[in-house]
Amino acid sequence: MWHIDRESDIPVYRQIADDLERRIMYGELPPGSVLPSERKLAQELKVNRSTIVQAYDELLATGLIESHRGSGRKVGTTHWGISPLRTPNWRQYAEGGSFLPNLPVIRKIRHEKQHRSTLIDMAGGELSPDLFPAEALKRMTRELDFAGSLGYADPQGDEGLRARLVSYLYDYHRIRTTEDSILVTSGSQQSLYLIAQCLLSPGDAVAVEAPSYYFSLPMFQSAGLRFIRLPVDGEGICPDDIPELHRKHRLRMIIVNPNYQNPTGTVMSAERRLRLLELAAEHGIPIVEDDPFSLTAFDEAPPLPLKALDRSSSVLYIGSMSKIVASGLRIGWLVAPQTIVQRLADARQQMDFGLSVLPQWLAAQYVGSEPFGQHLTQLREALRRKRDLTVAILERELAGEISFSVPKGGLNLWCSLHGEVDDSQLLEASIRRGILYTPGSVFGSGPGHARFAYARPREAELARGLAAFAEAWRAVRG
Amino acid sequence: MWHIDRESDIPVYRQIADDLERRIMYGELPPGSVLPSERKLAQELKVNRSTIVQAYDELLATGLIESHRGSGRKVGTTHWGISPLRTPNWRQYAEGGSFLPNLPVIRKIRHEKQHRSTLIDMAGGELSPDLFPAEALKRMTRELDFAGSLGYADPQGDEGLRARLVSYLYDYHRIRTTEDSILVTSGSQQSLYLIAQCLLSPGDAVAVEAPSYYFSLPMFQSAGLRFIRLPVDGEGICPDDIPELHRKHRLRMIIVNPNYQNPTGTVMSAERRLRLLELAAEHGIPIVEDDPFSLTAFDEAPPLPLKALDRSSSVLYIGSMSKIVASGLRIGWLVAPQTIVQRLADARQQMDFGLSVLPQWLAAQYVGSEPFGQHLTQLREALRRKRDLTVAILERELAGEISFSVPKGGLNLWCSLHGEVDDSQLLEASIRRGILYTPGSVFGSGPGHARFAYARPREAELARGLAAFAEAWRAVRG
Ligand SMILES: Cc1ncc(COP(=O)(O)O)c(C=O)c1O
Ligand SMILES: Cc1ncc(COP(=O)(O)O)c(C=O)c1O
Repeated sequence: MWHIDRESDIPVYRQIADDLERRIMYGELPPGSVLPSERKLAQELKVNRSTIVQAYDELLATGLIESHRGSGRKVGTTHWGISPLRTPNWRQYAEGGSFLPNLPVIRKIRHEKQHRSTLIDMAGGELSPDLFPAEALKRMTRELDFAGSLGYADPQGDEGLRARLVSYLYDYHRIRTTEDSILVTSGSQQSLYLIAQCLLSPGDAVAVEAPSYYFSLPMFQSAGLRFIRLPVDGEGICPDDIPELHRKHRLRMIIVNPNYQNPTGTVMSAERRLRLLELAAEHGIPIVEDDPFSLTAFDEAPPLPLKALDRSSSVLYIGSMSKIVASGLRIGWLVAPQTIVQRLADARQQMDFGLSVLPQWLAAQYVGSEPFGQHLTQLREALRRKRDLTVAILERELAGEISFSVPKGGLNLWCSLHGEVDDSQLLEASIRRGILYTPGSVFGSGPGHARFAYARPREAELARGLAAFAEAWRAVRG
Repeated sequence: MWHIDRESDIPVYRQIADDLERRIMYGELPPGSVLPSERKLAQELKVNRSTIVQAYDELLATGLIESHRGSGRKVGTTHWGISPLRTPNWRQYAEGGSFLPNLPVIRKIRHEKQHRSTLIDMAGGELSPDLFPAEALKRMTRELDFAGSLGYADPQGDEGLRARLVSYLYDYHRIRTTEDSILVTSGSQQSLYLIAQCLLSPGDAVAVEAPSYYFSLPMFQSAGLRFIRLPVDGEGICPDDIPELHRKHRLRMIIVNPNYQNPTGTVMSAERRLRLLELAAEHGIPIVEDDPFSLTAFDEAPPLPLKALDRSSSVLYIGSMSKIVASGLRIGWLVAPQTIVQRLADARQQMDFGLSVLPQWLAAQYVGSEPFGQHLTQLREALRRKRDLTVAILERELAGEISFSVPKGGLNLWCSLHGEVDDSQLLEASIRRGILYTPGSVFGSGPGHARFAYARPREAELARGLAAFAEAWRAVRG
């Protein structure tokens, strides 16, 4: 944040005063806020205390800051000592608006990540950096011919990419579709957002798996939706619960993640898939199938999506490059009836004017290519190794104290912790010992659950991270 | 849409039947919809009529389509002829949701663009393809080192890009800011969207220029905001109207585009800028300054943004690469107090999980670089030439029939049409003659106005396009 330029002609005290002035003017230090003590700031900036005194004196002279006996220095409430300018009440604006912020735990986890780079991250549901096919992507980026238009892209998505996705979806997922039925989005996330904002209305009942990723997104609440819980057991949700729930709540949509479900890792059984499709069609309820993980299948053939069996056009299918290629590319897709694709493309034009052409061109080259196929093979291998390691370490460190099912794909391992602990204490204790994970409550589960994202750390970090968790667990459990 | 593969082993009639089947299954041809006649489809696909008959017979046999005496063939309402599967009522879903679709005129214009590639486009507010610095961007793309993370990007924006923007904003706009006060967005559009969704609440009064770009965005209405009009004259809005409007409506925000305003091309006078800032500070009302055009200044030095003079931290400043580099990159930025940046970054994480790293890396190289500076010089030159041409042609073709102020920057020329015409008739007549423009009503103005986006066509198309408009004008005016 602070950049002192020792080569500059501007004296150091002046640089510091200038920077403070800028922060004050731009509202980062609002009127009345307390400034750091001379000693503290001197330490932080590695300068003499007298330099700080000089900087503060400058600002005192302009009336920009004030000195209060006993309580140190504060940002002045009458800027410039001239006119009583009013800064808008930015805090109130930040807290206004109908869109809800992320859950406090999620914000805490993000904050810790940003400020403690030594933490082992088993909270982030993504691949470790060494698993991204960076070289292949770089090479393909070099070869982009920029033949496409650099103007506003089609809000439905680049045509070349959609054409490529038509083949990919058939080759890898046995989904038959057409270019007109595909919307390219900023990952699965944007597909979910668009569906919540544009196809549903406040008060609508939406059935979701419990636990699930969707509980972590206040965005559904912001859209005024009511979540109806579909408990997940070893074979996924029980479709036969649906008719009764539909009668009671009039379900407007069913959102599922049938392949290596986040967070439980469950694969929905073949029987239940057919039954779910059958019931959805019988009642005319759309299914949203969020399928980011199916191609990570470790040993078995990747399970086919519901969409491949969908004969009544009941399924909106969501895919993404995030969990199998690189989350930072922000490329995902929605397969849907044309009316839906057009509606969402129209809406997103007002939100972001469509996706950048650059990652779309790259994805059009990469998805379904030979290097993509090779990468997937290696990825599945690497993820399996991490899964095996994680299972072995947990069995060694916490035998009898936790239980879990061994996931056959995906990036996450879901645990039940035996014995009573306070979830937030456990998280705190873990962070202090250098490990981040996601408490189960984020996914809407009761206390005593944890999700370990084993794909995110490098292999070498897994043992250290999970041992630190075990230590935290023992400390908190008493 | 239809791809018949003549090399394939699969007979042509089977290919056609398969394709129809896919369309039916994926809801593009919903139950009950009428299929094209044999003759029509045969013509479209350039095959014999008997081939179509054969394809239809296949589908009739499966029960997927039905034959009705007199009214031709329709998609069956009981798919497969087996169980009465119900397709969800997709049309109803598409029409649901609280987010409003684009204005009908805007959708019409988009539709025409997509389906008539020969139209001269003076509706799109963007540069013509030859004005994008494609070669420089391509070269810099080749040089990207992929050293940054390919994981989920910081939802606030790539750090390298934000650092670069700090220098750029000072060098080009005299705005002093810090990396923590910048949010990188998908163009100005996303900044506007995030502000509307996250800082304002339904019922809030927002003052906007009339006419302005903002009237074209039902997104503000979707957020439940009330627009309070600030009429634009030759020097921009009249700030002295604000106290009275504030008393009446309690203004929560003032949104302006002070430099080469869209659509009027007006530059707000220096005096009014100071007065606006003064009044905003006095009443504690935030100003949103949308500034996509200032660097297009043809002859004069680019006008300084309000933000450069903002001593009370009243201004949220929005910039973008769209109008000066390439709209398809989708890179824009918001300069705002840190609390606001953090709030919006948190929200957008739930909407799209942040921007793709690829265009951000590219922008971090390009913005403010030497090639960027050279490009700007050429761009301003080229735009001036187009402006001059447009003015000359309009004066020749429509002397005495229209009036306009000559814009000194920006991409648009705003006209008042003398005499009464029906705006939608005029648009229709123009489209028939091969020219697209934007009727003034889109921007919230009364009848008899038109916006010509002179940057969008190539130079050679300007004369043809505007002559076609003049012809349409004379035809409709009678
Ligand atoms: C089930 C599920 N859906 C969607 C997402 C969003 O991913 P993205 O937008 O990167 O595709 C995630 C990410 O954790 C997820 O686990
Ligand atoms: C005044 C104004 N603001 C914002 C935008 C959106 O531009 P972008 O999101 O491409 O930066 C436009 C585009 O026409 C505009 O004219």
